[in-house]
Amino acid sequence: MPKTFRKRSQKAGLPPGSLIYTGDKIEDKTRITIVEYDEQQVQTQVITSWAECPVVANKSRVTWIDVSGIADVGHLEKLGECFKLHPLVLEDILNVDQRPKIEDYEDYLYIVIKTISSQPGVDEIVAEQISLILGANYVLSFHEGNGDLFKPIRDRIITAKGRIRKAGADYLAYSLMDLIVDNYFVTLEQFGDQVEFMEDEVVRRPVPATLQTVHHLKNHMIILRRSLWPLREVVARLERRESPLIQDATAVYFKDVYDHTIIAIDTVETYRDIVSGLLDIYLSSVSNRLNEVMKVLTIIATIFMPLTFLAGVYGMNFKYMPELEWHYGYFAVLTFMALVVGCMVLYFKKRKWI
Amino acid sequence: MPKTFRKRSQKAGLPPGSLIYTGDKIEDKTRITIVEYDEQQVQTQVITSWAECPVVANKSRVTWIDVSGIADVGHLEKLGECFKLHPLVLEDILNVDQRPKIEDYEDYLYIVIKTISSQPGVDEIVAEQISLILGANYVLSFHEGNGDLFKPIRDRIITAKGRIRKAGADYLAYSLMDLIVDNYFVTLEQFGDQVEFMEDEVVRRPVPATLQTVHHLKNHMIILRRSLWPLREVVARLERRESPLIQDATAVYFKDVYDHTIIAIDTVETYRDIVSGLLDIYLSSVSNRLNEVMKVLTIIATIFMPLTFLAGVYGMNFKYMPELEWHYGYFAVLTFMALVVGCMVLYFKKRKWI
Amino acid sequence: MPKTFRKRSQKAGLPPGSLIYTGDKIEDKTRITIVEYDEQQVQTQVITSWAECPVVANKSRVTWIDVSGIADVGHLEKLGECFKLHPLVLEDILNVDQRPKIEDYEDYLYIVIKTISSQPGVDEIVAEQISLILGANYVLSFHEGNGDLFKPIRDRIITAKGRIRKAGADYLAYSLMDLIVDNYFVTLEQFGDQVEFMEDEVVRRPVPATLQTVHHLKNHMIILRRSLWPLREVVARLERRESPLIQDATAVYFKDVYDHTIIAIDTVETYRDIVSGLLDIYLSSVSNRLNEVMKVLTIIATIFMPLTFLAGVYGMNFKYMPELEWHYGYFAVLTFMALVVGCMVLYFKKRKWI
Amino acid sequence: MPKTFRKRSQKAGLPPGSLIYTGDKIEDKTRITIVEYDEQQVQTQVITSWAECPVVANKSRVTWIDVSGIADVGHLEKLGECFKLHPLVLEDILNVDQRPKIEDYEDYLYIVIKTISSQPGVDEIVAEQISLILGANYVLSFHEGNGDLFKPIRDRIITAKGRIRKAGADYLAYSLMDLIVDNYFVTLEQFGDQVEFMEDEVVRRPVPATLQTVHHLKNHMIILRRSLWPLREVVARLERRESPLIQDATAVYFKDVYDHTIIAIDTVETYRDIVSGLLDIYLSSVSNRLNEVMKVLTIIATIFMPLTFLAGVYGMNFKYMPELEWHYGYFAVLTFMALVVGCMVLYFKKRKWI
Amino acid sequence: MPKTFRKRSQKAGLPPGSLIYTGDKIEDKTRITIVEYDEQQVQTQVITSWAECPVVANKSRVTWIDVSGIADVGHLEKLGECFKLHPLVLEDILNVDQRPKIEDYEDYLYIVIKTISSQPGVDEIVAEQISLILGANYVLSFHEGNGDLFKPIRDRIITAKGRIRKAGADYLAYSLMDLIVDNYFVTLEQFGDQVEFMEDEVVRRPVPATLQTVHHLKNHMIILRRSLWPLREVVARLERRESPLIQDATAVYFKDVYDHTIIAIDTVETYRDIVSGLLDIYLSSVSNRLNEVMKVLTIIATIFMPLTFLAGVYGMNFKYMPELEWHYGYFAVLTFMALVVGCMVLYFKKRKWI
Repeated sequence: MPKTFRKRSQKAGLPPGSLIYTGDKIEDKTRITIVEYDEQQVQTQVITSWAECPVVANKSRVTWIDVSGIADVGHLEKLGECFKLHPLVLEDILNVDQRPKIEDYEDYLYIVIKTISSQPGVDEIVAEQISLILGANYVLSFHEGNGDLFKPIRDRIITAKGRIRKAGADYLAYSLMDLIVDNYFVTLEQFGDQVEFMEDEVVRRPVPATLQTVHHLKNHMIILRRSLWPLREVVARLERRESPLIQDATAVYFKDVYDHTIIAIDTVETYRDIVSGLLDIYLSSVSNRLNEVMKVLTIIATIFMPLTFLAGVYGMNFKYMPELEWHYGYFAVLTFMALVVGCMVLYFKKRKWI
Repeated sequence: MPKTFRKRSQKAGLPPGSLIYTGDKIEDKTRITIVEYDEQQVQTQVITSWAECPVVANKSRVTWIDVSGIADVGHLEKLGECFKLHPLVLEDILNVDQRPKIEDYEDYLYIVIKTISSQPGVDEIVAEQISLILGANYVLSFHEGNGDLFKPIRDRIITAKGRIRKAGADYLAYSLMDLIVDNYFVTLEQFGDQVEFMEDEVVRRPVPATLQTVHHLKNHMIILRRSLWPLREVVARLERRESPLIQDATAVYFKDVYDHTIIAIDTVETYRDIVSGLLDIYLSSVSNRLNEVMKVLTIIATIFMPLTFLAGVYGMNFKYMPELEWHYGYFAVLTFMALVVGCMVLYFKKRKWI
Repeated sequence: MPKTFRKRSQKAGLPPGSLIYTGDKIEDKTRITIVEYDEQQVQTQVITSWAECPVVANKSRVTWIDVSGIADVGHLEKLGECFKLHPLVLEDILNVDQRPKIEDYEDYLYIVIKTISSQPGVDEIVAEQISLILGANYVLSFHEGNGDLFKPIRDRIITAKGRIRKAGADYLAYSLMDLIVDNYFVTLEQFGDQVEFMEDEVVRRPVPATLQTVHHLKNHMIILRRSLWPLREVVARLERRESPLIQDATAVYFKDVYDHTIIAIDTVETYRDIVSGLLDIYLSSVSNRLNEVMKVLTIIATIFMPLTFLAGVYGMNFKYMPELEWHYGYFAVLTFMALVVGCMVLYFKKRKWI
Repeated sequence: MPKTFRKRSQKAGLPPGSLIYTGDKIEDKTRITIVEYDEQQVQTQVITSWAECPVVANKSRVTWIDVSGIADVGHLEKLGECFKLHPLVLEDILNVDQRPKIEDYEDYLYIVIKTISSQPGVDEIVAEQISLILGANYVLSFHEGNGDLFKPIRDRIITAKGRIRKAGADYLAYSLMDLIVDNYFVTLEQFGDQVEFMEDEVVRRPVPATLQTVHHLKNHMIILRRSLWPLREVVARLERRESPLIQDATAVYFKDVYDHTIIAIDTVETYRDIVSGLLDIYLSSVSNRLNEVMKVLTIIATIFMPLTFLAGVYGMNFKYMPELEWHYGYFAVLTFMALVVGCMVLYFKKRKWI
Repeated sequence: MPKTFRKRSQKAGLPPGSLIYTGDKIEDKTRITIVEYDEQQVQTQVITSWAECPVVANKSRVTWIDVSGIADVGHLEKLGECFKLHPLVLEDILNVDQRPKIEDYEDYLYIVIKTISSQPGVDEIVAEQISLILGANYVLSFHEGNGDLFKPIRDRIITAKGRIRKAGADYLAYSLMDLIVDNYFVTLEQFGDQVEFMEDEVVRRPVPATLQTVHHLKNHMIILRRSLWPLREVVARLERRESPLIQDATAVYFKDVYDHTIIAIDTVETYRDIVSGLLDIYLSSVSNRLNEVMKVLTIIATIFMPLTFLAGVYGMNFKYMPELEWHYGYFAVLTFMALVVGCMVLYFKKRKWI
């Protein structure tokens, strides 16, 4: 079973707001990338610690602070102070076994989503938690730190591709979520290939190893569903513009992300149905194999048992057995045996066993 | 598995509104058919490129622009400009792996539906995406280009059959959708025949090939459902007249399409239930075959093992074995063997094995 | 598979309102029965063609026109003209593969329902479509023409049994629907008997024929559900009195029909659950039979293989085999063999195989 | 299959309001118990026929008329006249195959519920229909007549236990329904014991009889659900106080009954899940038994077939077979045979077959 | 089956409000812990009986009365009197087989939840019922008495950790519920480990004991779901602040508990899916084993039956059998036999049986 359920029990009994990182320490070092931009200019800055709070007062500029590696709780506390985040938000950012969700704290929206990646060849799914905080003119993003996830967006800002530089913080949040949802399709296509491969495999090689691969595929689907269904809810609420932080012009883009999420869910459900079907095929392939084996056994037994009996009869030591005296008795018996075999073969041919 | 999931992953990281055709290039050439009509007259025109935007200002005439083959992105950009389409709409037209959906852009409705076709004999389902844009007095239709799909409607306009020439653009959109939904029934009837054929097959020939056909039928049902359920949603929204572009008199026709969609869904669900049942029958047919094989083996073994043993006994070389000396010993043993066989046969008859 | 899905594909591409009868021509001749009644008097009339429209202007009388056999489209067109029916209604009356539904055309309600009948002995379900049009003081009923379906109601009108003569057209419509729903129970009771019979059968005779009967029962349930669920919707809408054509006093009767429909659905669902259970029992009966067969084989093999071996040993031709020389060697071996058999029998007894 | 579906078909075609008792005539004689009470005094009276209508005009007293045995339609007609009951209510009281339901006739509520009883040892469930009519200051109760069902309530009224004497007719109705719902738990606990017993049984004795018991348990669950789900609906409507006949103070008691109903449903669903699991265990127990049988066969065959072959070799009658001449040939062969057996046993031990 | 359904039937027929403890008498003695606190000070007191009602009039202080061990009905009656609790509330506190629920009695909220614990090693789940009564400035908690469940909260109050001392009674109720929900994760993680362990087990050792463990796991999931789903409802109602007893600032904390409950449900559902998959794997592992056994049998039979037959042929006693006279006949036959074995082995190798 993939290790997607982390140890939550260590938190039982602690007061709420206790800042404890529940993930595996993938990366110790925190790397903070600050991007400030408006239509005219961009400023990028990478820091590993800070003296004072970043200034985000300028309404016409967008500030994006991307925090990679959240094991060091100090950075988070500082940010929480600067942006006046609720203690439960800080706790949830560190608690990396959240369900995708969205929470409206009036001044800002807190969004939790999952990004899924699977190394080809390795039979394991890795789910990383992304926390987004969307304010009036800033976006904070937090991830555990498996690689530079948001590079394509940063590049798009720097090269001013698309309308990202002209739009506000909500469009930036949209771009980040769009990227994450698009990543699901990469994983889904790998699954699609595996499912297709297994469809042959279950008929050709119905061995326990094949079954276990099918079982793993199924479990992966379960995990994907678990990430995607609540994500749909999150995006739906953004698209419905329940918060004034989302502008009219951006809502249609969130609708687009919503459509993609629905397609991803649809695809997962389709694969799930197909993978469930695979198991049935596997089981009946095994049954068919058993049938084959039993047919061989039955054919062999049905042919040789009567023959052996015949040979046994003429191996008896009775004093008076007239056949034994005949000169061609032996050959007669051999011929009779050949006849018996012939009849058997015809019978099996008729039954389509051979 | 039918190839219904195309490669979406190539779009990951690109800004929204990037015009990339995600389908297979079935047809390179774009063929644009423009039909303009009112109650009095019709004008048809086939072009492959254009100099300027088509004029659709005349409120009393309906303009229908049918674009077949969308691989050449240039045509689409031109149309998008002329009709002021949202960039996301253009992107979705090209992205041929959409779910059926409807989007209201106030000036026009954007509708995505799927048409399904299956060549008899070929065990494959082909789903083509149709995009419709319904404006006040115009309809734009886009398809990937498998044949002249909408010919029956064009003919009906030219010959002025039915009320199509008297009605507006919304009635034209209805006619196109009605045609597409009716096409589902052609596919469904082919499925019906196959399902009926397989119902005998699974009992008569429970071999792996039969099973795989059942599995394919099942997967096809899954794909059909995937197209039909969201289509129902689309038509329901049209029927509820959520947009002023749909006139009162046309709503009742959309209700009719809605009914047909429901019947199609109903039929798919019924087939799905029946096909699921087929698998159970298959499995128990295999079990029954195994039972048959085992019965043959058991009958043979049960008859010949005691006989062989008896023959073995009188083949022993003990000095003193009184039976061997009897003159009719041999015949007595043969008679006894015949008796044993008779008893066995009676036993099997009683057990209804033979 | 029962033939419940008729050929709809022939209609693909035709304009709406095309009058084509999609059923099997059960009966060519159309038979029209007109019953006019009020509290004082009744007039019955059977015609096969008509010169002019029937007069239904008299508000205090109820006119019931029952059309049996709808293959002759002309009659329908005439009626459509007289009662100003929408072209889609006429089309739907002829298209006998509708789902039960109700449509409100303000002046009249259009109701489609299915009546189910199954001949005992014949393993086939026949679904006939009934169309009802309920106006202010008239009811039109259309059916394909399997017998005089509505005779009990006609008799009740003539003999003035119950309150039918005192009530209006809506009460007549109720009476017709009540009769149809009651007919479902006749079919359901036949099913109940069959289900009960099969419950023994699957254990006593787990052969492929039994399985196919179960499969047919299951398919019949699917068809019944397909008729009953939308019927429930139809009756619910009548009971909620969404149309002014239904009077207050009649609503309580529709509530009664609604209750009966619910009970019918309930019963179908219960049978479906039980029939699904039958399949499991069948499969495990087959497994048990296999077990029985294998036990017989194993018992036979386990008893005779060691004996045959023993006999084989003393059938060897070694020069020096001391046992062979003993006078009672033969009897000693026979005794030993009996001992072996005894032990085996005890072992099987302990394992509860025999 | 338990006989829970009675013959409804006899009513097809009859006008509504036809009074026909559809149950089995359990008891011919009708026994009417009339209890009149207020806080100060109680009057009990048992009659088998009556001359005139009971007087229930006194607003401060509660009149409870309990009718046991409803086969004699005359009594019911009389009551219907006295209390001005709708003909459909009278019909439903007699039609003992109703679903639990509640109907509001303004002056009174008509409530149908089912009581379930199962004799221990007898593998049969008996469902009896209880009809309650709750008026402003009276309650009528009707049951088919299996014993004195409502004795505990009558005793409580007489002994003035609890608040029943202080409260109104709605509290009496509550008390009756509470008793009936509590009776479900008696049946559910018997089921619980049976389920627990079967959990061992399916592993220890996977024979067809066990399977049939499981199947019966499952069918009983289906029947219980069929009674309980609509009952929940009934109680929910009473608790929501949709009728002014239910007082504020009593609503909280109906909430209590509602909770009990939910727990009963919950328990049935839990048992259903567990019983479904039993079937899987049964099937795999059968498979395991088959495995056991086959292992015995395979072990026997694998040991004795080579031995028998060896014996056969030295039973051949070739002129020149050097081993036969050896003095210790016989013993050498016996030793070799013992070695073969040893190897086989080790092999089976390694495979964990023995 | 775990004993989660207690005897409810003993209450059938009793008037509502009858105080009967339906649990097992885990602990006879009642232990009452009273904690009174405000921001400045804390007072703790453990009593086993009391003279007069506790004073909770001081609005600025919170009084928490924790009752451990409810078998002694007297204490409860006293408390009910002091806090004016409804008789049905007292009855429900004692009736420890409630479903989680919340009831609003205006002056106070009555909350029922379940805490689940499972001893490692012991294959049993213990569900204990917790009743909470939340008033304006007091909380009453009742549990059956398995250990000092709420110690962590008491410690937090005493040490003034977190904001508990600054907040009101609703925050205390939140803290208690949060603790209980967190406890579910401890149990869920033990399940996770067991599920993971069984995933190997079902393939490696498909024996009945393994199956029973899987069955128990499945039943435990059913029980967990039964506790968690209604708990979700309870917390959702608290979070929606349907009662004025919940303050604005506390609602966000109940939202947090709600999220945790959802995660717990999610995890249970995921495990349920995986455990269902285990059964399929088990069954196919058994089938595979059977296949293995049958292959061994078939290989043995296929090799030795022809050989034994051959040996039998040359053991016949015909007068004239030329081969027997050949000098190297014996060796020729032995060589031929070796050839036959070789061919068989090659055949099996090709079929991938060995």
